Amino acid sequence: MSIQPSARLQSLPVSSIRRLVPYANKAKEQGVHVYHLNIGDPDVKTPEVMIRALQQWDKNPISYAPSTGTPEFIESLMWYYHKLGYAFLTNEHIISTIGGSEGINMALFTACEPDDEVLIFEPFYSSYSTSAIVTGIKIKPVATELADGFHLPNKETIISSISPKTKAILFSNPCNPTGTIYTKAEIEMLVQIAREHDLYLISDEVYREYNFTDRPVISLLDYIQDLPDRIIVLDSLSKRYSLCGSRLGVFITLNQAIYAGVTKYAIGRLSAGTVDQHVGAQLTQVPEGYFKQVRLEYESRRDIMYHGLKKIPGVEVQIPEGAFYIMAKLPVDDSEKFCIWLLEEYRKNNATVMFAPGAGFYATPGKGTQEVRIAYVLNGTDLKASLEILADALTEYNKS
Amino acid sequence: MSIQPSARLQSLPVSSIRRLVPYANKAKEQGVHVYHLNIGDPDVKTPEVMIRALQQWDKNPISYAPSTGTPEFIESLMWYYHKLGYAFLTNEHIISTIGGSEGINMALFTACEPDDEVLIFEPFYSSYSTSAIVTGIKIKPVATELADGFHLPNKETIISSISPKTKAILFSNPCNPTGTIYTKAEIEMLVQIAREHDLYLISDEVYREYNFTDRPVISLLDYIQDLPDRIIVLDSLSKRYSLCGSRLGVFITLNQAIYAGVTKYAIGRLSAGTVDQHVGAQLTQVPEGYFKQVRLEYESRRDIMYHGLKKIPGVEVQIPEGAFYIMAKLPVDDSEKFCIWLLEEYRKNNATVMFAPGAGFYATPGKGTQEVRIAYVLNGTDLKASLEILADALTEYNKS
Repeated sequence: MSIQPSARLQSLPVSSIRRLVPYANKAKEQGVHVYHLNIGDPDVKTPEVMIRALQQWDKNPISYAPSTGTPEFIESLMWYYHKLGYAFLTNEHIISTIGGSEGINMALFTACEPDDEVLIFEPFYSSYSTSAIVTGIKIKPVATELADGFHLPNKETIISSISPKTKAILFSNPCNPTGTIYTKAEIEMLVQIAREHDLYLISDEVYREYNFTDRPVISLLDYIQDLPDRIIVLDSLSKRYSLCGSRLGVFITLNQAIYAGVTKYAIGRLSAGTVDQHVGAQLTQVPEGYFKQVRLEYESRRDIMYHGLKKIPGVEVQIPEGAFYIMAKLPVDDSEKFCIWLLEEYRKNNATVMFAPGAGFYATPGKGTQEVRIAYVLNGTDLKASLEILADALTEYNKS
Repeated sequence: MSIQPSARLQSLPVSSIRRLVPYANKAKEQGVHVYHLNIGDPDVKTPEVMIRALQQWDKNPISYAPSTGTPEFIESLMWYYHKLGYAFLTNEHIISTIGGSEGINMALFTACEPDDEVLIFEPFYSSYSTSAIVTGIKIKPVATELADGFHLPNKETIISSISPKTKAILFSNPCNPTGTIYTKAEIEMLVQIAREHDLYLISDEVYREYNFTDRPVISLLDYIQDLPDRIIVLDSLSKRYSLCGSRLGVFITLNQAIYAGVTKYAIGRLSAGTVDQHVGAQLTQVPEGYFKQVRLEYESRRDIMYHGLKKIPGVEVQIPEGAFYIMAKLPVDDSEKFCIWLLEEYRKNNATVMFAPGAGFYATPGKGTQEVRIAYVLNGTDLKASLEILADALTEYNKS
């Protein structure tokens, strides 16, 4: 028997998104085609100008980058945020992180001492659970409901979850896993709560460009000048430019004590990838139409997925407003068992489909057990095939 | 006044290696040439085959890699370790990390609960201090002395530092910042202490190929089969292939509970860089003579630096056995003040030199204040110019 590592290492959750990968691999070994709707790894092309930047690489050696980011990458980010209307952002507000994930750790470490609490609306992005344990903080979940399109509860409900240990509210907008885009009123309520209760407000805005509504995504950058010490904005190029494999995230603060502290944190791991940052810096050269085209593609996928799910008896969904996920309630007792059954036993024309079981997106035990998160990151044909598999599989599953 | 972030963020040390960069930048703005001997960012070329792998990149999109590493990168690492004689290592023992830095965090998180202690021989690599705060552990420094070539103290001395909170011993071998390569007897003493006191033994072996002695670098991989649950080996491609900007580290364990736990940790940050790992995987194609040539180059630099320092009155050094650093005791009261003076005031032919002040490599207050760490990562001509500057500057500094 092996000696056990620390309790905290052991307590890390097994990601709902990747936990079933061994079952999928086994199915594939048997020659079964698996439609991967479990993970948000888009099939949309990375802009050509970014691939070209790799092909034209001419620096040798590949040296460390400055810990807060290469000047060319930080400048490209400034260009992007200035274009969005945030002309007040300078290179003293923006730190390059190793993917959005590192930014989450940095933000929680910044806001909290060990054992402090952070309010997070559930369901939430499952990696927040890992970040919480890695940074030693406690997640205090605040429920949102499928019937409300996962929009926020009222102010009193949120405030009732605040304790003396609460230091921050963390949320993603557009929301992973629900696709919800918070209204201006909701965001302003959060800003007000943060102000009134001296909390940090941390928004994860990596899906900003995936908006299928006719109202804008309200960024916390709209409020960061009013609440400069309390707001942290996290971002990433992964989804925006189909650059998941280039670990490029962004940490934004106007609080100079936070900037100085996070810089020291960043120095401890030396630098983000030098080549990745050069690739990311090409964002200024991405054709104007790129986002629009990607958004239209995802909107059509969203429509296929949403309307397809609506037609399956017993499935409950609300239309996602953004991102590229939908939380669906299935007519099964335990969605994880169902997902495993899909991978292990069910086949339709020698294919099956993989979802992320819903419970992994909740901190409250017993919640989300009938739900799955579906990432609609495949093309329309594949999505339609996946929907047919799901409809057929549910019938068969519930017969037995 | 800005609201203060968490005490732990504020308590992060300002890296000794990068702290004086603003002074260096100011000097450069004045047109002064600064010889950078403060940081181990080598000027040796990255192997051409690795640069070519970038130029021939043909995958689009740039997708996530598996969280524990791409199969091609893990296989290339297995090839490397098998060649070193560790044929027992499989892909179930090796996890790809985002630089060596991430591996250090993973190892400390694995070995310790918050507030547990880790023995580290001082002087030690300054980023360990940041990792300690990020993972919430305490460094218990164990002194080594310049007069002993920074070799280890005897067993009784080391054991006397162990408390019930002590969970691990962490060391780098060859050692950054001292260049010391521990003898077989020293390594076996550590293995014995770990066994007798139920400690994890974590070795950071990123300078393995930089050995200027006629005895081998003794890797903990020689003992990992005897103490499979307790030994963690950390490694990195940064120094070995002049790939500092490609964030490629390695975490090795035979303990399957640790492997499973660190995999969950790795899933929380999704993946290391996909492109970087493709670059790293070319290590199997690096010409046989590459290391030898690099080692000879550094050995000649070591000789220039060591003999040059020996000639300067009042400077105390021991000959480094490996890596590319030397800790030098200077005839000054406060080496940080001296380093700042070098950057702010001293010029010789419109040039100056930058070192890393020694105190940043110690956890014990007051230690290392007369020392500097010198990274001999420049060519011979530049090193000779730097030595002339140092000799002349010390004379001038001590006149005033």
